[in-house]
Amino acid sequence: MLEELKEKVFKANLDLVKHNLVIFTWGNVSAIDREKGLVVIKPSGVSYDTMKASDMVVVDVNTGKVVEGDLNPSSDTPTHLVIYRAFPEIGGIVHTHSTYATAWAQAGKDIPNIGTTHADYFHDDIPCTDDMTEAEVKGDYELETGNVIVRRLNEGGINPVHTPGVLVKNHGPFAWGKDADNAVYNAVVMEQVAKMAFVSFAVNPATTMNPLLVEKHFSRKHGPNAYYGQKKK
Amino acid sequence: MLEELKEKVFKANLDLVKHNLVIFTWGNVSAIDREKGLVVIKPSGVSYDTMKASDMVVVDVNTGKVVEGDLNPSSDTPTHLVIYRAFPEIGGIVHTHSTYATAWAQAGKDIPNIGTTHADYFHDDIPCTDDMTEAEVKGDYELETGNVIVRRLNEGGINPVHTPGVLVKNHGPFAWGKDADNAVYNAVVMEQVAKMAFVSFAVNPATTMNPLLVEKHFSRKHGPNAYYGQKKK
Amino acid sequence: MLEELKEKVFKANLDLVKHNLVIFTWGNVSAIDREKGLVVIKPSGVSYDTMKASDMVVVDVNTGKVVEGDLNPSSDTPTHLVIYRAFPEIGGIVHTHSTYATAWAQAGKDIPNIGTTHADYFHDDIPCTDDMTEAEVKGDYELETGNVIVRRLNEGGINPVHTPGVLVKNHGPFAWGKDADNAVYNAVVMEQVAKMAFVSFAVNPATTMNPLLVEKHFSRKHGPNAYYGQKKK
Amino acid sequence: MLEELKEKVFKANLDLVKHNLVIFTWGNVSAIDREKGLVVIKPSGVSYDTMKASDMVVVDVNTGKVVEGDLNPSSDTPTHLVIYRAFPEIGGIVHTHSTYATAWAQAGKDIPNIGTTHADYFHDDIPCTDDMTEAEVKGDYELETGNVIVRRLNEGGINPVHTPGVLVKNHGPFAWGKDADNAVYNAVVMEQVAKMAFVSFAVNPATTMNPLLVEKHFSRKHGPNAYYGQKKK
Repeated sequence: MLEELKEKVFKANLDLVKHNLVIFTWGNVSAIDREKGLVVIKPSGVSYDTMKASDMVVVDVNTGKVVEGDLNPSSDTPTHLVIYRAFPEIGGIVHTHSTYATAWAQAGKDIPNIGTTHADYFHDDIPCTDDMTEAEVKGDYELETGNVIVRRLNEGGINPVHTPGVLVKNHGPFAWGKDADNAVYNAVVMEQVAKMAFVSFAVNPATTMNPLLVEKHFSRKHGPNAYYGQKKK
Repeated sequence: MLEELKEKVFKANLDLVKHNLVIFTWGNVSAIDREKGLVVIKPSGVSYDTMKASDMVVVDVNTGKVVEGDLNPSSDTPTHLVIYRAFPEIGGIVHTHSTYATAWAQAGKDIPNIGTTHADYFHDDIPCTDDMTEAEVKGDYELETGNVIVRRLNEGGINPVHTPGVLVKNHGPFAWGKDADNAVYNAVVMEQVAKMAFVSFAVNPATTMNPLLVEKHFSRKHGPNAYYGQKKK
Repeated sequence: MLEELKEKVFKANLDLVKHNLVIFTWGNVSAIDREKGLVVIKPSGVSYDTMKASDMVVVDVNTGKVVEGDLNPSSDTPTHLVIYRAFPEIGGIVHTHSTYATAWAQAGKDIPNIGTTHADYFHDDIPCTDDMTEAEVKGDYELETGNVIVRRLNEGGINPVHTPGVLVKNHGPFAWGKDADNAVYNAVVMEQVAKMAFVSFAVNPATTMNPLLVEKHFSRKHGPNAYYGQKKK
Repeated sequence: MLEELKEKVFKANLDLVKHNLVIFTWGNVSAIDREKGLVVIKPSGVSYDTMKASDMVVVDVNTGKVVEGDLNPSSDTPTHLVIYRAFPEIGGIVHTHSTYATAWAQAGKDIPNIGTTHADYFHDDIPCTDDMTEAEVKGDYELETGNVIVRRLNEGGINPVHTPGVLVKNHGPFAWGKDADNAVYNAVVMEQVAKMAFVSFAVNPATTMNPLLVEKHFSRKHGPNAYYGQKKK
């Protein structure tokens, strides 16, 4: 079942390697079939070298039960499912430990929106979650990680479509998008803006953004008046 | 029309990838035929993997109108055209979001001329533009970006042939040269001097240049007494 | 003798190159056959390009004498042997001069446990040894390097299975594991967490870890309740 | 003439590219035939992609005159010749603008000896030259660059065999060795120790070296009691 979506999720997982976002098995991509309520996700701890499209695991978005697949799904599956349930516009999710985004997550700081590369894809600062409580860590940890993400966006008044990613404090980035490929794209953007912001603040600790550029660049690529790229036919 | 120039611009765009100056579609190269008053430029948002020489778009340098080509030209086209109109010595222009040059642009700081690598190709500090005004951002934004660049050079008394590039604040670098290849070359130099300056100031915040070396190195490669390389026959 | 182990050690040495942990000959991997009391290790100063599995040297873990092999064993062999004798759970050891881990070793600082990437594989801060004394440096230096490592772990109450690596001050990292491959894996992790910690502290000098996450992540991958990856069959 | 040496110098120049020490034509390697008093050096400004062994230029070490070759020798040739004349033990010289060594040169700081990677190959801090005077810059600049290098070593009491490299202030590194290959090797070491020192001082501004380790590591690889690598037969 969902052979086409499995193929897409499989290829999107390999794209993480191509874009140097993962070492070993430290990353996972999922995508959802909203009509069927089913999520396709990478199996846990399987090498990218030997992984096949048929190894992808199918999970029920509401119950988290494995519907198809011989392997365990990614241990981060409950986090993905919480995000899918909270934000119905999202079609694909990526989690990595990519170097610079993870470094900002470890630092516990939002990645400030200080340039048009950031503003082209993320309207706001990329938020970093709060410390998890003892109850959250010792409870259903991966599910609570999802809850912490959703809470951070909701309490910050952040639109998950306009700011498609978050840093989990002391952990690493989650990015998402309309499908698996778009989520990978946004994960690449996060890593690049994390790297550039590290350098910018080293060069000038008082770096700030011209706020006018945020609206301009975001709207140049998104919304009814977007004019970047080729018109859809 | 302009098949030879299209081929050159196409190859120069691919060179951006080869030199690791772009990810995805975040870069563009153009070149001008001064006699015909026509600019050849990369189409907007087209992947470097599938792009062909025949996809290059031909634009009138004065009106900005597309003269040939089925695709939209780069959304940065008006910026390129302003630069061509202001500086008649320029034959090719490159815009990228290359990591270190963009980081300096985000930091809003000129890249100081602190070494002979810089002085070999850029006589002055690589200037960073001022904040754009509300009228400029909300007006004809890409055209105004060009105006801000031209103003920064003119008001700084900077010769665009001797300092072939600029940082647009909170955005990224533009470089240029006598043709498309030379513009790409200068974009590579900018990225490298931006990276080295980041490291130099981390190692020694009080880094300064011996001003005698600037004139020596610049004149070693440029002007009537240049003696670097092989003599033209 | 030990042809299978030689092959494994040989391949693990090549993996150091693949993971960009060594330049020239600056690294070595060994593994031990506990039953026979024999250690297989890379020869000293031999290029990775021309090295063969049959070049691996077999050494007695207790006496340090070469049991088989025409080449000198790595000059770091006495360090490896001390670690094998002190910690019977260890099956493989790696030494490199990998960039970021070596930079922390030069800085003389433990790599703080500030993220789940670290906590997934290293329970504690990655310890840095003390300065060696004149007697240690002028005595049996490589053996004393091993003694300094063992003392640092024992005095710090650090379990070498739970924290499979150490920084030798002003020198570089040693990592280990249940076999040669696992030691290489942990050496890759050390280099990556060293790099990310460098960036995290640059971004936020006051970076700290939520201590609850350490136990959670370490136990997610280790011990009786581990649930990462696929169940062993 | 000197066909064998030309081949060696040609290959050593290509090794600069392989080790990521140069972009474009920003580097050159030479070697000397001491008996004949002739130096073989890369031509000026020729691309590494098209360069052939037969393009190498032969120059008289005392007069600087081209003895064989159709192309101009590297513009840095006079600097090489001064170093060969001052230090008869040297057989090969490399100049690059490699990223991290050049960044330290721009910063005008010696690279401190803070680790065994450094001490294995460079006994002392890697010295940075003083500012050049107006007479030196406006005079025979490349020759005076050589004089500044020689003076820095001699006044610092630095043995060029034990510390085979220098930073020219605001310019970049020169490295040397017993032949062209060994000079390239030492140029790679300089770049790597420059990178690691940058990270070490970022992590700990008070980084210092245990001086006992300097003598130990240097003598482990050099001099009559060296025991690293395989014995010469």
